[in-house]
Amino acid sequence: MTVVASVGRSLLGLEGISRPALEHLLARAAEWKRAMGDGTLKPVLGGRFVANMFFEDSTRTRSSFEMAAKLLGAEVLNWTARGSSTSKGETFLDTVRNVSALGVAALVVRHTASGCAQLAAQAVDVPVVNAGDGTHEHPSQGLLDAFTLLERWGRLDGRTVVICGDVLHSRVARSNLHALRTLGARVVLCAPPTLMPAGFDALCETRHALDEVLEDADAVMLLRVQLERMAEAFFPSAGEYARRFGLTAARAARMKPDAVVMHPGPINRGVELAPEVADGPRSLVLQQVANGIPVRMAVLERACA
Amino acid sequence: MTVVASVGRSLLGLEGISRPALEHLLARAAEWKRAMGDGTLKPVLGGRFVANMFFEDSTRTRSSFEMAAKLLGAEVLNWTARGSSTSKGETFLDTVRNVSALGVAALVVRHTASGCAQLAAQAVDVPVVNAGDGTHEHPSQGLLDAFTLLERWGRLDGRTVVICGDVLHSRVARSNLHALRTLGARVVLCAPPTLMPAGFDALCETRHALDEVLEDADAVMLLRVQLERMAEAFFPSAGEYARRFGLTAARAARMKPDAVVMHPGPINRGVELAPEVADGPRSLVLQQVANGIPVRMAVLERACA
Amino acid sequence: MTVVASVGRSLLGLEGISRPALEHLLARAAEWKRAMGDGTLKPVLGGRFVANMFFEDSTRTRSSFEMAAKLLGAEVLNWTARGSSTSKGETFLDTVRNVSALGVAALVVRHTASGCAQLAAQAVDVPVVNAGDGTHEHPSQGLLDAFTLLERWGRLDGRTVVICGDVLHSRVARSNLHALRTLGARVVLCAPPTLMPAGFDALCETRHALDEVLEDADAVMLLRVQLERMAEAFFPSAGEYARRFGLTAARAARMKPDAVVMHPGPINRGVELAPEVADGPRSLVLQQVANGIPVRMAVLERACA
Repeated sequence: MTVVASVGRSLLGLEGISRPALEHLLARAAEWKRAMGDGTLKPVLGGRFVANMFFEDSTRTRSSFEMAAKLLGAEVLNWTARGSSTSKGETFLDTVRNVSALGVAALVVRHTASGCAQLAAQAVDVPVVNAGDGTHEHPSQGLLDAFTLLERWGRLDGRTVVICGDVLHSRVARSNLHALRTLGARVVLCAPPTLMPAGFDALCETRHALDEVLEDADAVMLLRVQLERMAEAFFPSAGEYARRFGLTAARAARMKPDAVVMHPGPINRGVELAPEVADGPRSLVLQQVANGIPVRMAVLERACA
Repeated sequence: MTVVASVGRSLLGLEGISRPALEHLLARAAEWKRAMGDGTLKPVLGGRFVANMFFEDSTRTRSSFEMAAKLLGAEVLNWTARGSSTSKGETFLDTVRNVSALGVAALVVRHTASGCAQLAAQAVDVPVVNAGDGTHEHPSQGLLDAFTLLERWGRLDGRTVVICGDVLHSRVARSNLHALRTLGARVVLCAPPTLMPAGFDALCETRHALDEVLEDADAVMLLRVQLERMAEAFFPSAGEYARRFGLTAARAARMKPDAVVMHPGPINRGVELAPEVADGPRSLVLQQVANGIPVRMAVLERACA
Repeated sequence: MTVVASVGRSLLGLEGISRPALEHLLARAAEWKRAMGDGTLKPVLGGRFVANMFFEDSTRTRSSFEMAAKLLGAEVLNWTARGSSTSKGETFLDTVRNVSALGVAALVVRHTASGCAQLAAQAVDVPVVNAGDGTHEHPSQGLLDAFTLLERWGRLDGRTVVICGDVLHSRVARSNLHALRTLGARVVLCAPPTLMPAGFDALCETRHALDEVLEDADAVMLLRVQLERMAEAFFPSAGEYARRFGLTAARAARMKPDAVVMHPGPINRGVELAPEVADGPRSLVLQQVANGIPVRMAVLERACA
């Protein structure tokens, strides 16, 4: 599959975006965060509409884009697959074209199918922001994770980030892999063999147990275990998974003193991440959520500029 | 059934509305479209609330009313049957009275039952805009279709508009029939005998195959085939329907050189409308969507004035 | 169960709130109602966000909080359990912490579980407004009912309010009991023995038939019969219930000349309340709805101040 990082001002993925382009976007996010803090926000998208088109369930991403858009002065049209004409059999592209024809300034699209954001971007004149497409990319998540680590460390060069869990099905892992490596970090993917994409060991370092790489990590990013995968026999049980790949309190105690823990949410507490670690001093989970707002402001500003 | 076109400033249907009244409303829509284009919108409904009450699924109509209201400066309360007290057994009229008692300036109501908008208008002091009631009327759709044709042709007198498909169950057909004829067009209804309302052949011209009237048409408006009707034996199969009533590329090629194609959406591509015609140069489908905004601004302005 | 009335500026229940505190809040609501009437509203929450988190269905309460927040100048994030990460198994507290981390000024929370609002308030730094938690409390409803009666009577001292119906499962009954008694009213609870909480006869006057107390009442507040309780054998049938506890036209005719009728909605017409009484001159039902707006403005203002 050829991946196009952006069609015009769309943001479809982070693969192939240059380091200066990423750094520019993240610097702009930092300015928005400052403006939120000191009350100097400007309604640069005043009078414009952003359509939030979520064909898949979401709490934080949808609300985060909504707040980001409104803080920029835009109005938001919330559209979900439930309660819409999708239930009458309208195609994805017809729905996207229709919402676009309403005159919105940008479409934020989440869908279960990989590549949907790109399909949408090719079908309409309006910029499309990928809010997660199947197992492909979730670029605003990758950006906010990079932002959160940069805020902590200043720069990513020389840092080791371990991304641990169901890498095979994770758009979060893919977007982070691209962004963090482009920004200079060493990324190590850690997953059961059945949940590691074929060929990824040629692309970057891979491991099959968290213990093999735990003490190297400056950050461990846990991925959500989709418990429904168990039925598909990708892994035998939640308990077995947690024993090899879960970040327990005992494992967290063996991490470097300053190392941090991240999770894109929603968390399965006690499976991939122990409650005391999720709520403990290493955890950046809620900072990630908070940083989503200024990062998405930068993304929407770029899309609608 | 006696039909009341409006109770006060409500818009319940287009039947019985005079030509000057329609022309006045459409002229106002044209002014709003101009104001959107040159950035001279005024928040005439600032500080007021419009309630979008959709008891039936919708994408474009709900979003279109929401954008129209917000462009006029109003706030919008989105209310859907899912997630509401309807699931606790509250009656339609109690729900309508309650939302009205919140102090909204207008109710936009869609419901599966014909006559619901009128029932609502009689139950509350607030103006009601019918956003589609069962198989009765969908007046804002009729207005935006008339607006789109007027924008194209200047006037409708002497023009032939063919409305083709499931006329029996189509509120879009009814509203267009009333509006287009009042504005001077010749309207021809084309449907299988099982899907043509009894008595309509006394009311206007009717046909039972698209080929009988295709070459006369200045516009062909296709109606959405509700595929669930097949189970009710209104027509034998989607393929059979398409052969007699579908606008295929071959048929589109036989239309007058300047003739146009319309569809209220959502489209069943390949059933009532071939994809290459839907996306081709004759198609006004996306203009219809775009024109929905200024038309609904005029409707809401009239309701709340 | 220990009940905490408020954690900081949260509003979790009315139990234990002092008379001056209630009167202050209601006086502020009266000022907001006046400001709505004479067009002198000030956007005191401009630039801030209120999250409406409804884990349980609602029409009037959700819309009422939304209008109240917007009339104060705030933006509203509407969050419902459907279409969210709750469907992916996220815990209640993680969801609440996440929405809080977005940077909202207040959380309005409705949930089927008693005590959830308090749990939420202990988990986040942001004030929480209880919009109904299981069978515990629904404080904004208790306040708006008190407001509506004060508006009618000036003061509650010496007045008798009968709360009739399924007291056992009613958070509305509990919040009203606390508020109305604190403000000086005599409250009589009337319910079938199976639907009266154990021990409440030590707490206040209780009756087991509406006729025993009807002629004493200055106000009768009917509670919604949850018809699904019949299956649980709390009462034998809707008809049997109505005969002893329903406010029929005949019973309404026996009330004091100026006595009023209230219902929190949604109404089961013909079960707990006869249609002609619900729509008749004694009914304050729609005033209750209208008063919900200024009361919730006062509640949100207090939370975000």
